[in-house]
Amino acid sequence: MSQSRIQLYYKNVTADVIGKEHGITAEQFSRLADETTPVIEKINKQRTAGKTPYRDLPYNTSNVQQVKELTSDLQENCENLVILGIGGSALGNIALQTALNPFMYNLHKTQRSGPRLFVFDNIDPDQLSSFIEWLDDKIENTIFNVISKSGKTAETAAQFLIFKKILSDRLGPDALQNHIVATTDSKQGTLRKIADQFNFPSLEVPDGVGGRFSILSPVGLFGASFCGIDIDLLLNGARDMDKKVSTEDFFKNPAAINAAVNYHYYNNGKNISVMFPYSCALKDLADWYRQLWAESLGKANDLNGNKVHLGPTPVKAIGTTDQHSQVQLYREGPNNKLFTFLQNKNFNNKLKIAPAPQCAPELNYLQGNDLADLFNVEKTATEFALIKDKRPCLTVLFDKLDPYTVGQFIYLYEVTTSIAGELFNIDTYSQPAVELGKKATFALMGKEEYKNLANEIKHLTELDNNFLV
Amino acid sequence: MSQSRIQLYYKNVTADVIGKEHGITAEQFSRLADETTPVIEKINKQRTAGKTPYRDLPYNTSNVQQVKELTSDLQENCENLVILGIGGSALGNIALQTALNPFMYNLHKTQRSGPRLFVFDNIDPDQLSSFIEWLDDKIENTIFNVISKSGKTAETAAQFLIFKKILSDRLGPDALQNHIVATTDSKQGTLRKIADQFNFPSLEVPDGVGGRFSILSPVGLFGASFCGIDIDLLLNGARDMDKKVSTEDFFKNPAAINAAVNYHYYNNGKNISVMFPYSCALKDLADWYRQLWAESLGKANDLNGNKVHLGPTPVKAIGTTDQHSQVQLYREGPNNKLFTFLQNKNFNNKLKIAPAPQCAPELNYLQGNDLADLFNVEKTATEFALIKDKRPCLTVLFDKLDPYTVGQFIYLYEVTTSIAGELFNIDTYSQPAVELGKKATFALMGKEEYKNLANEIKHLTELDNNFLV
Repeated sequence: MSQSRIQLYYKNVTADVIGKEHGITAEQFSRLADETTPVIEKINKQRTAGKTPYRDLPYNTSNVQQVKELTSDLQENCENLVILGIGGSALGNIALQTALNPFMYNLHKTQRSGPRLFVFDNIDPDQLSSFIEWLDDKIENTIFNVISKSGKTAETAAQFLIFKKILSDRLGPDALQNHIVATTDSKQGTLRKIADQFNFPSLEVPDGVGGRFSILSPVGLFGASFCGIDIDLLLNGARDMDKKVSTEDFFKNPAAINAAVNYHYYNNGKNISVMFPYSCALKDLADWYRQLWAESLGKANDLNGNKVHLGPTPVKAIGTTDQHSQVQLYREGPNNKLFTFLQNKNFNNKLKIAPAPQCAPELNYLQGNDLADLFNVEKTATEFALIKDKRPCLTVLFDKLDPYTVGQFIYLYEVTTSIAGELFNIDTYSQPAVELGKKATFALMGKEEYKNLANEIKHLTELDNNFLV
Repeated sequence: MSQSRIQLYYKNVTADVIGKEHGITAEQFSRLADETTPVIEKINKQRTAGKTPYRDLPYNTSNVQQVKELTSDLQENCENLVILGIGGSALGNIALQTALNPFMYNLHKTQRSGPRLFVFDNIDPDQLSSFIEWLDDKIENTIFNVISKSGKTAETAAQFLIFKKILSDRLGPDALQNHIVATTDSKQGTLRKIADQFNFPSLEVPDGVGGRFSILSPVGLFGASFCGIDIDLLLNGARDMDKKVSTEDFFKNPAAINAAVNYHYYNNGKNISVMFPYSCALKDLADWYRQLWAESLGKANDLNGNKVHLGPTPVKAIGTTDQHSQVQLYREGPNNKLFTFLQNKNFNNKLKIAPAPQCAPELNYLQGNDLADLFNVEKTATEFALIKDKRPCLTVLFDKLDPYTVGQFIYLYEVTTSIAGELFNIDTYSQPAVELGKKATFALMGKEEYKNLANEIKHLTELDNNFLV
């Protein structure tokens, strides 16, 4: 079994490195430990009391078995897997695919051990029309996985209705059950009713697990498993991280330190949190993190009912690319950001840089180096430049990139989020502000019961040519 | 000729809509007009004095002619175009491709009128190895466009040396000139020397135009033209926008209003600027904007030499996707953001939502609607929810998405940046903070002249196990 780890490195947020104005002193760390330790105990108790069921997903063997059985039932003749979902129903699937399958997976048959994967988490008619045109002669070899706890999410419902009709028109209504997998509530809701009526094979979105914490449930596992990712290893990584993040010794708990550092900086004027992977494969995990962080920690009220309007703004940057786009701002602009680098110590591929032509001896320094070494050197160089300007930097170090380390990373960040939510004293697991936009959509789409709201919206958003230039 | 426009809509930043605490009053607008009008005059003079040569790119017919001639020379038998570049040498190419070619362009031959396009703006060995493996039997039908003003950029140089060797090994050294196009300085620099020695066809990165302002030069035009995008129409759009943004009447100048609104909000505690396209095609223009904005406006010093450490942090969000990821934070978190929606009034494709099954009448409201209408309704719904919470919102309205409107958008944002830079009183066109990271990379890669720096970096960044958990 793989023994590759991930570790959190936090020296470059300390006052010793970046000075007292922006760094965390030993005394402050000690106070953060005092404040955070009871929180670790608290979330451990919440977990035991069954209040955070996402914590137990890595131990759910029946999920794994169901996913594997369904995968094995369906994989024959399946050349395309199309996932329809949005938010937590899509971001985890996208992140796992980008992290763990080759860059050219969809374009190169010999590089994949499953079907092509397409995840649609939007309702752009031009995007979908381009896809539908391509799909034409391939629809017989295509499986759709529609993911929605309720089935009421407008975007996913609209996509589903469109593709269901295409399937039905092309292959006949009886073929639907061979081409659609529903991942939804086990008992109730719109999609459950539809799945039962049409006899779709289905998987369960577990109760009490919000979309943004659902990646290690069948929501994320089915697509991963279908596309050849070792989900046992993924969950194994999460379980092993569980041990580390359950310890009540602050200085041995990477989630606690991560949460405390983030909390400290938010309270000290650094309200932007940049996740900065030096790995193309990790880029979509940064988008997964954006949702986890923003929906969990962005809250108007604290648990005592005070208006607080807090929440760090998560930002995704990619090394080395964004050295040539964002680092000018990151170094010279306001010192209002905490940076978290993701670094891969051992890439899977070696790629040696060839000699420079004789006319360009200024490039000789590159010759014979592994590209991975240049990549990691650039991470160090960028971090160096940032800490010279007293910008705090964390690093999550991956021994290598595989399902085991990715599973660790996911679980580390989920528990980090739970601890941070408690430190901020907010309801980590709700997302009340998403509702108004949903209602406004219903209203504008003509749902009778929202007529008054529709009038209010139309009045407020009616285009006023005086402000159009 | 197309008469489709883009327009800036700014009513939802006014105090009338979102209140006096967060909105801009008529009096404040009038003061902003007074402050901005002389700036428009100033940048018009700078332009006439030849100090902002990016302004004249849309009028450069010899660029267009060269690009078209080279495209027509090379396109026969070319099935893959690979662009090697980083920052401004890549972001414009990616943005134009995503905005103006179909989503399935690379996967579906009948949807493209040029070669497949791959833009590599990073040095990830796993990503490149996956690509190289795929490229194997296709290299004979592949053209590489390497883009670097100096040729010294480490990432682009490393990529170039790797692919040059592969080409040379596979097709022989004499074939290089048929497979590599260099876009670089016309007279000097590393890549110019190499292009001359190996007889590569070449295009010019114009003098005095920074990477982030180079999209309408051969840097961006070659890839676009090669992939079937109408670059005449693109430049035509930029020229027509030039007329609008050159007017010294503030309230008729969308760049001036855009810059002034951004400037106002940055000075009033909203230091995050979210670009929020409701269009999958526009998503990479938001990354192009991120560089333009961050490198231009993120500065430590003002023009009087005062330390200011200013600069709004640009953030990319995508509608509707990020409604289910970021809107919770955007509505309830700190009111520290200015939102700029990009909206497409007329998508190219109609896609009707099919009827819901009888068991799910709660979805009947979707039936028969165009997906585009749902998409635009969700934009309005999200904007409504934000302005209810007093969050300021701008919208750039596209009549439709085509090269003409995209050209307008690019030019609008370039001139907006120039005006904003003057309002902030900083040097818009420099990026001094990028240098240290480059030097640190040279140092860590063993360049002799940076030995002392290498020692300093190693000392400061040496892994300390006491902070590794």
